[in-house]
Amino acid sequence: MNQDYHFMDLAIQEAIKGRYQTWQNPMVGAVIVKNRQILATGYHQHFGDSHAERDAISKLTFEQLSNSTLYVTLEPCSHYGKQPPCADLIIKSQIKRVVIAQVDPHSLVTGKGIQKLKDAGIEVVTGIRANAAQALNYFYTFFYQHHRPWISLKQAISLDHKLGLTNQRTAITNSKVYEKVHQERSDYQAIIIGSNTAMIDNPSLHSSQVSDYPPIRVVLDRRGRLFKRPDLKLFTDQSQATWIFTQHPELFSNLHNSWVKIFQTDGTIEDVVNQLTKVGIQSLYVEGGAKIHQAFWQTGLVDELITYQAPVLLGKDGYDAFTPDNTVLFTDLKLKQLANNFRIEGKLSHV
Amino acid sequence: MNQDYHFMDLAIQEAIKGRYQTWQNPMVGAVIVKNRQILATGYHQHFGDSHAERDAISKLTFEQLSNSTLYVTLEPCSHYGKQPPCADLIIKSQIKRVVIAQVDPHSLVTGKGIQKLKDAGIEVVTGIRANAAQALNYFYTFFYQHHRPWISLKQAISLDHKLGLTNQRTAITNSKVYEKVHQERSDYQAIIIGSNTAMIDNPSLHSSQVSDYPPIRVVLDRRGRLFKRPDLKLFTDQSQATWIFTQHPELFSNLHNSWVKIFQTDGTIEDVVNQLTKVGIQSLYVEGGAKIHQAFWQTGLVDELITYQAPVLLGKDGYDAFTPDNTVLFTDLKLKQLANNFRIEGKLSHV
Repeated sequence: MNQDYHFMDLAIQEAIKGRYQTWQNPMVGAVIVKNRQILATGYHQHFGDSHAERDAISKLTFEQLSNSTLYVTLEPCSHYGKQPPCADLIIKSQIKRVVIAQVDPHSLVTGKGIQKLKDAGIEVVTGIRANAAQALNYFYTFFYQHHRPWISLKQAISLDHKLGLTNQRTAITNSKVYEKVHQERSDYQAIIIGSNTAMIDNPSLHSSQVSDYPPIRVVLDRRGRLFKRPDLKLFTDQSQATWIFTQHPELFSNLHNSWVKIFQTDGTIEDVVNQLTKVGIQSLYVEGGAKIHQAFWQTGLVDELITYQAPVLLGKDGYDAFTPDNTVLFTDLKLKQLANNFRIEGKLSHV
Repeated sequence: MNQDYHFMDLAIQEAIKGRYQTWQNPMVGAVIVKNRQILATGYHQHFGDSHAERDAISKLTFEQLSNSTLYVTLEPCSHYGKQPPCADLIIKSQIKRVVIAQVDPHSLVTGKGIQKLKDAGIEVVTGIRANAAQALNYFYTFFYQHHRPWISLKQAISLDHKLGLTNQRTAITNSKVYEKVHQERSDYQAIIIGSNTAMIDNPSLHSSQVSDYPPIRVVLDRRGRLFKRPDLKLFTDQSQATWIFTQHPELFSNLHNSWVKIFQTDGTIEDVVNQLTKVGIQSLYVEGGAKIHQAFWQTGLVDELITYQAPVLLGKDGYDAFTPDNTVLFTDLKLKQLANNFRIEGKLSHV
């Protein structure tokens, strides 16, 4: 029915209210309707808090809920996690009809919530605004479908494909790119840089959105060179977590604290990605430099390349951005001009 | 006076009618006005034909011309060239007032036409819409001010700064770039490529504007490798002139004809530019490849770099575009998106 789309659009609007606070949980919104009247809305407000369905249901009496329709952007859960299962609550509430946008992408969970509702005699409709709901939780969906984080490489290059002048911090892109990158970081659960970038640029890797879960700063420091640099912002700035992946964790014995954590790795990108997958990191924004990009590229796990380009030539003293071994055609290209700079986003065809 | 600007704008509109046909002559327009009424308009229609002033004056009687005002976009000539001097004609016509946009950029001629008119008692006003008139004949003005042609390098690169795959024709840019390049070539008096490009790409180097003076195809073939390739379009396609610059003109004895001309050169870019200057070529569109670009760049004579970019990575097998020795910041940048490709135009700061 047409009104199903209308109410689901509202549920999506509800879901978006949780943006930047649901962290590893999806954004989910819910709307409860009876006789074409909206009785309550709800959304998942914060990682660990009530699910959207519970948030909406809790605002109504048993009488109001009876025979109502629940619109929810993601399949209700049927298992005990941080919260008791929403499917049970829905059944107990005597809701008559449940309209769902996206079925749960967890392969172990998909359809189980729906089945539980159906078994209890509830009418269930799925797939209403499924694409919009999936786009809302793009990285979450990818993570549970592919069992690894979405990986975006990000680079800022000159017209002649250089990242900067050798061994010095070189800011070639403009202030609009600066803003856009800070905005974009907020969408990812982890930012990755190498030890060279950490030492030469000394970045704080801040993001512009206020969140209780800002992206974790992951630094690949295989040889453990950073232990001599406790002055770096990664170690002194407490606003975001810093995770060091190294073959020599013993060198960092004095540097771990409430926001700095040390991980032992065998030094391969695959191992780092596996460890991040195990702790539920759903998305990586790999800022480089070129060696890190090259290493990621060679794993075949890169899903997207985001390039910012400034119309300057750095010339022969410039430091080359990474170059793949073979020709790469992107799918799903997005191009955008940011004052006198460009942003070029291209997905890899395996995605 | 305000109406001076109005009539000069009309004269500029007249001038533009001559576009693509005036070749090494400037586009010039003229409007004759008396009592705020336009009596006649004129423009320089074709290389070798009447100048704009004569074109307009010839449409009127002596009585009409007497006490009128002439608006002309470029200082009237005072010397005998392909045409008798316009200044004399204006004086004879008893025109009372002459309004001029741009003074003649020829250093030997500047102000002489104006002086002649003033000496004859004519009121002369200059500088009305001077910038617009100068923009109209940008390359012409540059040529007479700098005594050499304006030089634009043009390249089509991938995101990783490659021109193509080694030793094969690689079209990476899209159809909008193709159209734009064909359009852009029409604005130049000569297009320059190297012998490598001639052999690998076998281009016809057509331009999209109909003109009796399409750009001359200049090929730098120092060692004289092309004499073995009479099959190339440069030799078989008669629609545009082909000029071969080589250290070995004797090799081409069988190849010169009505549209193919052979020039002896010492092999330096400076010599080629000098010879082109001597025959009055005012603008060069240097299409490359990379070695030709590098050689031009090193002369310090490059005025502009025009880059078309496609969002693909050609990878390690790609052939590098030219890279300057030092960092280059452009002035007067123009950026434009052409579907999923970009055009980046940057002038060099010495301009």
